[in-house]
Amino acid sequence: MNYLNSEKDLLKKEQESLKKLYEDYKGKGLSLNMARGKPSPEQLDLSMHLLDAIPSSDECKAADGIDCRNYGELEGILECRWLFADILQTKPENVFIGGNSSLNMMFDVISCFMTTPIYEDTTPWFNVPDRKFLCPVPGYDRHFGITGYYGFEMIPVPMNEDGPDMDVVEKLVAEDDSIKGIWCVPKYSNPTGITFSDEVVKRFAALKPAAKDFRIMWDNAYAVHDASDTPDTLLNIFDECKKTGNEDLPIAFCSTSKITFSGAGVSAMATSPLNMKVLKERYNYQTIGYDKINMLRHAKFFKNYEGLLAHMEKHKNILAPKFETVVSKLNSELGDTGIAQWTNPNGGYFVSVNVYNGTAKRVVELCNEAGVTLTGAGATYPNGNDPDDSNIRIAPSFPGVDELSAAMDIFCVCAKLAALEKLV
Amino acid sequence: MNYLNSEKDLLKKEQESLKKLYEDYKGKGLSLNMARGKPSPEQLDLSMHLLDAIPSSDECKAADGIDCRNYGELEGILECRWLFADILQTKPENVFIGGNSSLNMMFDVISCFMTTPIYEDTTPWFNVPDRKFLCPVPGYDRHFGITGYYGFEMIPVPMNEDGPDMDVVEKLVAEDDSIKGIWCVPKYSNPTGITFSDEVVKRFAALKPAAKDFRIMWDNAYAVHDASDTPDTLLNIFDECKKTGNEDLPIAFCSTSKITFSGAGVSAMATSPLNMKVLKERYNYQTIGYDKINMLRHAKFFKNYEGLLAHMEKHKNILAPKFETVVSKLNSELGDTGIAQWTNPNGGYFVSVNVYNGTAKRVVELCNEAGVTLTGAGATYPNGNDPDDSNIRIAPSFPGVDELSAAMDIFCVCAKLAALEKLV
Repeated sequence: MNYLNSEKDLLKKEQESLKKLYEDYKGKGLSLNMARGKPSPEQLDLSMHLLDAIPSSDECKAADGIDCRNYGELEGILECRWLFADILQTKPENVFIGGNSSLNMMFDVISCFMTTPIYEDTTPWFNVPDRKFLCPVPGYDRHFGITGYYGFEMIPVPMNEDGPDMDVVEKLVAEDDSIKGIWCVPKYSNPTGITFSDEVVKRFAALKPAAKDFRIMWDNAYAVHDASDTPDTLLNIFDECKKTGNEDLPIAFCSTSKITFSGAGVSAMATSPLNMKVLKERYNYQTIGYDKINMLRHAKFFKNYEGLLAHMEKHKNILAPKFETVVSKLNSELGDTGIAQWTNPNGGYFVSVNVYNGTAKRVVELCNEAGVTLTGAGATYPNGNDPDDSNIRIAPSFPGVDELSAAMDIFCVCAKLAALEKLV
Repeated sequence: MNYLNSEKDLLKKEQESLKKLYEDYKGKGLSLNMARGKPSPEQLDLSMHLLDAIPSSDECKAADGIDCRNYGELEGILECRWLFADILQTKPENVFIGGNSSLNMMFDVISCFMTTPIYEDTTPWFNVPDRKFLCPVPGYDRHFGITGYYGFEMIPVPMNEDGPDMDVVEKLVAEDDSIKGIWCVPKYSNPTGITFSDEVVKRFAALKPAAKDFRIMWDNAYAVHDASDTPDTLLNIFDECKKTGNEDLPIAFCSTSKITFSGAGVSAMATSPLNMKVLKERYNYQTIGYDKINMLRHAKFFKNYEGLLAHMEKHKNILAPKFETVVSKLNSELGDTGIAQWTNPNGGYFVSVNVYNGTAKRVVELCNEAGVTLTGAGATYPNGNDPDDSNIRIAPSFPGVDELSAAMDIFCVCAKLAALEKLV
């Protein structure tokens, strides 16, 4: 039944029967969570041998003989730099290994540039009162949180199916030198799940920003996180930037948070020697080095990049049915209604749903009352402000398939009810 | 032989024979390191069962049931907050657990206050062009590195045997509101090894700084690190500050870097609710949470504070003979010369030696040429500037006792030679 073409009394009838259904769901006292991109316990179980990857009788020596138990090695151990160079498609010498959180590395990068100029003749961003950051929307709330904390005006840029609208990006960065960067999740984007097309990556590499110290925050969080047998591929931005002479534009990030343990993984960053010099000058005062034992644990657990990819197959086998459940429920329950659109990603951690304009907050509220927790409506927009009140991010990874199925039934009923409240 | 009262030709004779000795040492091609406060492999071996503290078959649940493998728990797991509350002499609710480095937490605190005001009516420190920090000297080079990086003018304050000269501290902070803080290692201070007296702690708690946002960086790095059977005790600064109504003054730090693995430990911070609110607002954007598996590993390894203290006894048994070696060599080789003074600490990681004025750089140079690496002369002063060129920090923890003994022989010869170069 297409809600947009139907007579009012038919819609009223539909509303009545959905209300009953909704009350039934409410009565069940469910507690289901599709709010955050958290791996399920089943996924975490895949990495339990990380815990004994270094036996207590071991020597704890890295490939070059250094004792990982002791201080030192600011950039991280060699074998981890090799591994992350493969993930981030660059050379090990461009890679810096961090602690358990790539978000923390991104925060540190922005924090660094707030008070330290990237070039001798540029201004620390704290001294740029009208500093701005481009935020493709819908996007990742924690990215927006960092630039929000540091007082950037965040300019939304529309996301298309092949990445950010590059006409808009090119125009904005060319004309305003107070625009200092852009947030990107180039592969299986958070939350739409799309991957930037080759053309979009090439246009990023060819950007001509007015600000010499404009930087692309390239959060490649889902570089190896396929959830289907038709995975996306992402063009190598470092190669493209080499061709255009723009090697200092991108700073890439990733972590094993959604590969091993989300709370106890290893993060990494890769960028040009010029950026790395500025950042390492800071890191040199910030720490003596990150947790090398955990780096060694990861290197021993995976052995190499092929080992890591084989491990990701196991995640895929758990995640694929969950993505299928979400999309098939959306198809069967909302497919005819005309009130919603959604993505069908080949990987990553999210499905993005646009419900009927002006109802996202109401859908989340209805879901909460029926025991289904969703990411707050608006979270995918800077400052939580979705002008259409339409986008909802669904995170299918944590619940089991049955729970997910039940949660999606409720979600679809709530999406319909909220639309009918407007339409009737 | 007292060099200061002796005739020139006697000194010349002494110099000749020392030169021969020095050449002999050089000929041995030694490579000995007393530069950094690094635990020895033998000490690191004490914690090897940290590696299997969580078996791979375990549930990885914290005391309150949360899954330590997954995201969350910004402040750290409960059992670690309990443990560090005991170390830092405060309540668990005042404790925030970090990553592997307390230095990183100190950096983050300064970094936070650079761009975020502590109070609504104070100024972010980046906007205080003549910002200053008090630096008791000799002190810890990495502390000075942080405030140096952030552009503070660093004002040296003399260290006495019972702590910083509080007459100087009180006067300076009372008259200049651009002085924003002071670095302290209150117990077994780096490098002198002294512990602040009760009176000094009370005077810190009673400070009346002109700057409302003045803070005491209370780096309690060696809180449980005794190296003798006559350990020092430190008055509880939180209790004292409660009495004076100055609860927002101190921010305390510590870590297990010199308890378990220096590169893979757990750090912690404790401070007042007001400071914690400002810092947690930042941490909330900086990370989803630090490595809870490593926290759990530590909690299981120690079981409780008593377990941790028992573990520290083992460190003491390794470290005490090293401290004794250093001090006994200094006594026997330099005791009569009148050219040097040193400390005889009951714990911590360092012995501080003041060689003949104007010769510290030369002593370090002579030692290096004979294969003994020392911390750079001047490192214990802000910007590496020791006005007397006299202080040298000796770190006895890493070498074995025999190596240490050999290294100290060379050190003493070099100290004498450098003095004689001036005296003859």
